Amino acid sequence: MINLQETGRRAEEAKKILAKCSTGQKNEALRACADALERDAAIIIRENAKDMEKGRAKGMSAGLLDRLLLNEARIAGMADGLRQVAALPDPIGEVVRMSTRPNGLIVGQKRVPLGVVGMIYEARPNVTPDAFGLCFKTGNAVILKGGSDALCSNIAIVDSLWSGLEKCGLPKDVLQLITDTDRQTAVELMRLNEYLDVLIPRGGAGLIRTVVQNSTVPVIETGVGNCHIYVDESADLAMAENIIINAKTQRVGVCNACESLVVHSAVLEKLLPSLTEKLSAFSVEMRCDERALAFVKGGVPATEEDWGTEYLDYILSVKTVDSFDEAVAHINRYNTGHSEAIITESYTNAQRFLEEIDAACVYVNASTRFTDGNEFGLGAEIGISTQKLHARGPMGLEALTTTKHIIYGSGQVRQ
Amino acid sequence: MINLQETGRRAEEAKKILAKCSTGQKNEALRACADALERDAAIIIRENAKDMEKGRAKGMSAGLLDRLLLNEARIAGMADGLRQVAALPDPIGEVVRMSTRPNGLIVGQKRVPLGVVGMIYEARPNVTPDAFGLCFKTGNAVILKGGSDALCSNIAIVDSLWSGLEKCGLPKDVLQLITDTDRQTAVELMRLNEYLDVLIPRGGAGLIRTVVQNSTVPVIETGVGNCHIYVDESADLAMAENIIINAKTQRVGVCNACESLVVHSAVLEKLLPSLTEKLSAFSVEMRCDERALAFVKGGVPATEEDWGTEYLDYILSVKTVDSFDEAVAHINRYNTGHSEAIITESYTNAQRFLEEIDAACVYVNASTRFTDGNEFGLGAEIGISTQKLHARGPMGLEALTTTKHIIYGSGQVRQ
Repeated sequence: MINLQETGRRAEEAKKILAKCSTGQKNEALRACADALERDAAIIIRENAKDMEKGRAKGMSAGLLDRLLLNEARIAGMADGLRQVAALPDPIGEVVRMSTRPNGLIVGQKRVPLGVVGMIYEARPNVTPDAFGLCFKTGNAVILKGGSDALCSNIAIVDSLWSGLEKCGLPKDVLQLITDTDRQTAVELMRLNEYLDVLIPRGGAGLIRTVVQNSTVPVIETGVGNCHIYVDESADLAMAENIIINAKTQRVGVCNACESLVVHSAVLEKLLPSLTEKLSAFSVEMRCDERALAFVKGGVPATEEDWGTEYLDYILSVKTVDSFDEAVAHINRYNTGHSEAIITESYTNAQRFLEEIDAACVYVNASTRFTDGNEFGLGAEIGISTQKLHARGPMGLEALTTTKHIIYGSGQVRQ
Repeated sequence: MINLQETGRRAEEAKKILAKCSTGQKNEALRACADALERDAAIIIRENAKDMEKGRAKGMSAGLLDRLLLNEARIAGMADGLRQVAALPDPIGEVVRMSTRPNGLIVGQKRVPLGVVGMIYEARPNVTPDAFGLCFKTGNAVILKGGSDALCSNIAIVDSLWSGLEKCGLPKDVLQLITDTDRQTAVELMRLNEYLDVLIPRGGAGLIRTVVQNSTVPVIETGVGNCHIYVDESADLAMAENIIINAKTQRVGVCNACESLVVHSAVLEKLLPSLTEKLSAFSVEMRCDERALAFVKGGVPATEEDWGTEYLDYILSVKTVDSFDEAVAHINRYNTGHSEAIITESYTNAQRFLEEIDAACVYVNASTRFTDGNEFGLGAEIGISTQKLHARGPMGLEALTTTKHIIYGSGQVRQ
């Protein structure tokens, strides 16, 4: 097993050097890293092929294999991602407020790096340069632990990024990859409070639960999305159909996809038969409560478990309600705090939905699929927080910073 | 043992009712609670006397007994605290940003309550109405677990606050006190993720460590302050003396008091003899490294342990350095991320200190004692965060809120 204390100490030293880098130096290094990835594409693809072969041999699903796969285009995408981060404004150093107190003390709050960020994620090698880029831009050292199924890919990517850093005279240790796949190492990482300022898990519900349960380092929970669309009595049903089809089928394996439809009983009959037909073109399985089932050709009965399930698949649960209040109660009971939408023409219900639904992102008359750093104008995202502390919803560069109070005095003492 | 699931469910229900209260209703209730405390002062003092008697019998220190004691003046102070919170602006509902995206989606971020806040604290009954007031004002239900040595006092205070809430037609369950002193109950509270949005420990280093180590609920660490004052080569020594005496002696048992002095070797001889004399009037024990010891009459040799100790007492450690860099390295090694000060006339060193010291509050030429919600203009504080996530430094009302994204659409779907 590797010595995580040593990993922590290295990150500690590296972050001090990084903290002194100007925005220009950081951007130059990000572009050098992007160039390195493109230059090393053949090596990375070769190493990725080893992971792919092992994955196939152990029977990984097509979806997981697709997430694992790297090719020229995807590596170019990773490089472009780093260049985009280089082009974003640097939040570090911004003084978010400053004022003079009655005693003359000038008290300000300045944005600074968190320090050392830990990331635990699954076999998605694209997360490696993504996470590095965002953490680096915000002056944080990063310790990555990617899924063991992507180990060869990650090692090749990190080697390439290191060469970019070295070219710019920056310490490799701002980016460390834990290559030890021992579970005990992951647990130790979750308890590395002395060095880690935050731990961000990215992946499925199981991974996130494990990190929340075992980590003593502060965690930002990301990602699980059991997202609902509620079709109100007053909804424009053509708009509703359009939004539901988009939110369910535009991309099914993502956390902001719609998993559950909540329908006011007054519009069941007008909405469901036509919607069912359109969704059947995408082979969406509809799991319905008894009243909805009557209008869904080929539907299957829903169980209690369905209401709480994030399918990440061509499946949609359908729940009937008799009132707006019942819809809100149902959604607040089963939602995971991610993204929730109402389709309505009622001003009052629109405003009440925004007010009463407890989630990171609450929509009126739009697809839940917009919950995304780019779509919200953050430029890039490190994940979508479903917790309430520190950051909620899509997390951009700012979520990787903290502030410190800076106080300019002239000899003040407290009375 | 009590059923914490039931406690959680009650808080869940109560927070929904509280969320619908206007600022006016909340302020009215806070004032009613303040009136109730003053009306019930005799009862509270009688119950407090029981705690005091038990405390004396078990040999509690004078300092702890003083923190436990309630009298008319202190109860009036608690009531005034609630009235001051009522007078503060309500952060809830503020839209902190809102803009229109290129596709016409209007994306805003609105300040909302965290939900349910847990507090674990020691035998300081004044924390009970303080924590309640700040959480209530920000629309949060609160679950309190105060030190068992203050149980009778806390029960009486909560009873009184409940009568204020009831008078205003608000549910008592927005304020719940865990009266079960079983340690297992505390551990369960730390794992009540289903209901608690955050847990804030307030107290000594031991309590905070226990909560950080055992909690799966997100924690905000507060309070431990091993605060340094560095006297630079260029310092105005009269100013330095004045600030050091204030930061060490104005109030010794608090987290923003100075615990350690770091002195540039060039000013050892000019600073220490005179400072020692003045501090001796307060019977401050000086624990010095070898070089400082030569100039400190009655000083005792410091050990390695002293550099890392928050004394909360009339003790000051004194460390000699030969350069600014050495001072920064020493402070960044031993500080607890609370409050650190430099006394200097050097522009460059002042700016570098603000930049390079890693702490919640970094001062130039002022006493560390100013780290406080009121002094910083926040109006009130629930504690001082020494962690980097969510809130850092004095936490006012805003620290008890989160944001949610509200999105106004007109049928947008994602391409």
